[in-house]
Amino acid sequence: MSDTPSPYSTGLERNPANHVALSPLGFLSRTAAVFPDRLAVVHGARRYRWAETYARCRRLASALRRRGIGKNDTVAVMATNTPECLEAHFGVPMAGAVLNALNIRLDAATIAFILEHGEAKALITDREFSPVIEKALAQIKRPPLVIDIDDALAPPGKLLGEMDYERFLATGDADFAWQNAADEWDAIALNYTSGTTGNPKGVVYHHRGAYLNALGNALVWSLPQHPVYLWTLPMFHCNGWCFPWTVTALAGTHVCLRRVEAPAIYAAIAEQGVSHLCGAPIVMNMLLHAPEEQRRSAAGREVRMMTAGAAPPAAVIEGMERLGFRITHVYGLTETYGPATVCAWHGEWDTLPAEQISARKARQGVRYPVLEGLMVADAETLAPVPSDGTTIGEVFMRGNIVMKGYLKNPQASEAAFAGGWFHTGDLGVMHTDGYIEIKDRSKDIIISGGENISTIEIESVLYRHPAVLEAAVVARPDETWGETPCAFVTLKPGASATADEIIRYCRDRLARFKAPKTVVFGPLPKTSTGKVQKFALREQAKALHTPEENSAPKGR
Amino acid sequence: MSDTPSPYSTGLERNPANHVALSPLGFLSRTAAVFPDRLAVVHGARRYRWAETYARCRRLASALRRRGIGKNDTVAVMATNTPECLEAHFGVPMAGAVLNALNIRLDAATIAFILEHGEAKALITDREFSPVIEKALAQIKRPPLVIDIDDALAPPGKLLGEMDYERFLATGDADFAWQNAADEWDAIALNYTSGTTGNPKGVVYHHRGAYLNALGNALVWSLPQHPVYLWTLPMFHCNGWCFPWTVTALAGTHVCLRRVEAPAIYAAIAEQGVSHLCGAPIVMNMLLHAPEEQRRSAAGREVRMMTAGAAPPAAVIEGMERLGFRITHVYGLTETYGPATVCAWHGEWDTLPAEQISARKARQGVRYPVLEGLMVADAETLAPVPSDGTTIGEVFMRGNIVMKGYLKNPQASEAAFAGGWFHTGDLGVMHTDGYIEIKDRSKDIIISGGENISTIEIESVLYRHPAVLEAAVVARPDETWGETPCAFVTLKPGASATADEIIRYCRDRLARFKAPKTVVFGPLPKTSTGKVQKFALREQAKALHTPEENSAPKGR
Repeated sequence: MSDTPSPYSTGLERNPANHVALSPLGFLSRTAAVFPDRLAVVHGARRYRWAETYARCRRLASALRRRGIGKNDTVAVMATNTPECLEAHFGVPMAGAVLNALNIRLDAATIAFILEHGEAKALITDREFSPVIEKALAQIKRPPLVIDIDDALAPPGKLLGEMDYERFLATGDADFAWQNAADEWDAIALNYTSGTTGNPKGVVYHHRGAYLNALGNALVWSLPQHPVYLWTLPMFHCNGWCFPWTVTALAGTHVCLRRVEAPAIYAAIAEQGVSHLCGAPIVMNMLLHAPEEQRRSAAGREVRMMTAGAAPPAAVIEGMERLGFRITHVYGLTETYGPATVCAWHGEWDTLPAEQISARKARQGVRYPVLEGLMVADAETLAPVPSDGTTIGEVFMRGNIVMKGYLKNPQASEAAFAGGWFHTGDLGVMHTDGYIEIKDRSKDIIISGGENISTIEIESVLYRHPAVLEAAVVARPDETWGETPCAFVTLKPGASATADEIIRYCRDRLARFKAPKTVVFGPLPKTSTGKVQKFALREQAKALHTPEENSAPKGR
Repeated sequence: MSDTPSPYSTGLERNPANHVALSPLGFLSRTAAVFPDRLAVVHGARRYRWAETYARCRRLASALRRRGIGKNDTVAVMATNTPECLEAHFGVPMAGAVLNALNIRLDAATIAFILEHGEAKALITDREFSPVIEKALAQIKRPPLVIDIDDALAPPGKLLGEMDYERFLATGDADFAWQNAADEWDAIALNYTSGTTGNPKGVVYHHRGAYLNALGNALVWSLPQHPVYLWTLPMFHCNGWCFPWTVTALAGTHVCLRRVEAPAIYAAIAEQGVSHLCGAPIVMNMLLHAPEEQRRSAAGREVRMMTAGAAPPAAVIEGMERLGFRITHVYGLTETYGPATVCAWHGEWDTLPAEQISARKARQGVRYPVLEGLMVADAETLAPVPSDGTTIGEVFMRGNIVMKGYLKNPQASEAAFAGGWFHTGDLGVMHTDGYIEIKDRSKDIIISGGENISTIEIESVLYRHPAVLEAAVVARPDETWGETPCAFVTLKPGASATADEIIRYCRDRLARFKAPKTVVFGPLPKTSTGKVQKFALREQAKALHTPEENSAPKGR
């Protein structure tokens, strides 16, 4: 270890021949060049080959550039899993811009907040969501360029924009000479968290992380060339866990799906040869409990499903595996490009009793190879907890698939990265074999049907109800949704309200899925310092037996 | 595209939580943590589990550090494909040092040159090579620390060093707290080119490229978790094409092999469950022509083999596929971490006639997903040639799996990177479907009467002759034509043919001017990696005086 300059550190600099910014965009040009005639995208009767999809993405990029949208400009998309949404994952960053895929279940006020905070210069929006988008646009000062997705498979809806998506593509050049990201640290996407406290935070992804997690998915899932991937996972969730890029890198086929319903999923498996899909446990539940006549065979093929969002219940895993689905459990956050850990399977576990198999599979597991650090540690000192499977600590991550930070929120970014680790806010244990298991999502979050719901957001609505004195919301276990919001409410002296009234009140002011499904009246248990004891309420919510108390409808 | 500072470019900087140097070293710690009890390495009767291999690598790193060897220090290894050589791929860079794996077939003078040029601080050497190493060490001024690999499976040999490898490991700490590369651009390996003209050049690899090509191998080969990989490819050749890192990332099993011989290969396939192997076409040839009694079954399993180093002759591919080997053809150079292109397969080609399948498979193909640019272009202007399958140009590459440069040779580095592309020195064509096909090394092309003749084209015809086992064609100086093709041929055991017969066979199948004018029978001189030493044949061809010696020995 001499101190003289090393020959390895001179004359061996980066140059254009040996250093190129990592970006998932190159996956598309490669696949289109190598497999131009392979099926890239299926959507109802629509079919695109890779050469066509590439041309459409280049047109999109070119059309955006011709409207002055480029480097570091935000382009929002409000869409289900359609070809347009997939194309935006390439076309938008090929223009140098940043993709902001919006959660289609958000209310107008939240969307308006996001469009303003993200400074969207353009919004590509599916006609199904015109009512909420129209309201949102009315609330913002400088409305963006609006382009409508006029999908033949969408329910009827007003067109709000300057032109529709196909006409917009026609204004672009199919041979557009797009440039790779100048720097792999450049932003590629902006994804808003559900916002546990106050407003949602804008999580910024870079090209490097998107590239790496796209490959990470392929590695941990043993994904071969040419998977047939069904879009049951929303692309607006962490950019579909980076699968728009993964499946493209492998020259697979994207099978689109507007609505996650059992008959459509079984049909795609049987007719399109679907080999892989992702989704929250709610999707497994749906497939498992579909009526016999809806279930269709994969003709002996094994279908692989990746799940995350809540620990999948053992009974659900067992049932799915009996149906021929091979389940892989992953875990991650919006801040980690979707999945960052995987419950890596050991062949010898196959011979365990079914219950133990499911118990193992319910663990969140080990780091993706593209995540460099994972630990369960004391939230203050960052000292790792013992690997004993019982000591609870906070889950911390470090690596290249951790976000750049929160947009225009340096305080939140600093807090998230304090001590050189990303603070997930999730509580878990480290098992003796080095597998983590989440014991509690960060206390204020409810995960219902794969969607994160902030209890604080619901409480703030409840508190506005004229009859409500105090309110606290916790998760209640639910067979269908995983969890649903359960509100504990103390009424003002002399005031009265029914559970139904309160639920309706919330529905009018929140995205429908966020409204409580259960309301329980009574005094709230408190600590000596006056803090509501949520853990006690969680116990109560768990112990509730029947859903009668509010006769809430099942759908959303 | 406003000029005001973008919110995406402020407050979102790299920090220890979201940016870690890419390095393949993390694959080992992850695999050891997740699969500590899985079989990592097999070598004869020796077996190591991943926890053990990781501990041995940490001991090696620690032992080196205790001897003052660290960042940017070169550690040379002279070894066959043994556990020690594999461990050096992790232990050496875990010490911060740079691995220089030596070609075991080099002579003492060349090894002495490399040890001096690379400034090796340590040499880990297998006793099989003590004679040449002893001579080499005697020629250099400051001999390095020498450690002997005293492998029980090695032929007898003198021990030259201070101590043997196992004792050296014992001086290190199994819990050594190694550090990840500080910068992914740091050197991880040094590989000398074979240097057919002048001194060998030292190609420097960085951690980033090693990481990426390790993943690139997995992607293009659809490698699943837990491959059982047989070490038929020398680890000293482009660091075994990065497979020490690939197989480790996938928690596979490394099956070591001191000597590439058909019985040992077939035994490993049958007994160790080998699923994947790599090697030059010569290895395929060996397997194909092994006596019936040596061939052992993979019990119906398909064994996948990746080949490169020369276009595999169609007849060899056909034969191998009939034996149950599925061949993938890749191409690359020492300067590109081994394979950088792959003949990506199209399912619809499976139904082509066998001859056409082999012709497609013989093409070098398309870029790895981790290589960002590939073209066939004019060597001077860098203007791409037409994609017509006939216009010959030089093959150029650009991307993250192109070397840092040549050690202490800025002129050679500059020339290699001129114009922002890596100049491979190989000549090829671009087919209409975007697949490249190498026609020759620049120096291998024959120019006869002003016509360019591809030696590979002639060789592929020679390989179809029923009596020919191996063939190589070079230019022979000619007063009339400038050069004429001269064929060197090895006949199959027991087979016979005359030079005239062979020339006639070629004339029937090639443009007349391309048929060899001279045929010489006998064994072909080869490099350690199985490549025919064309420069030696060129010398021989030059020395031929009359055409009479053609009526040479038949068979061998």
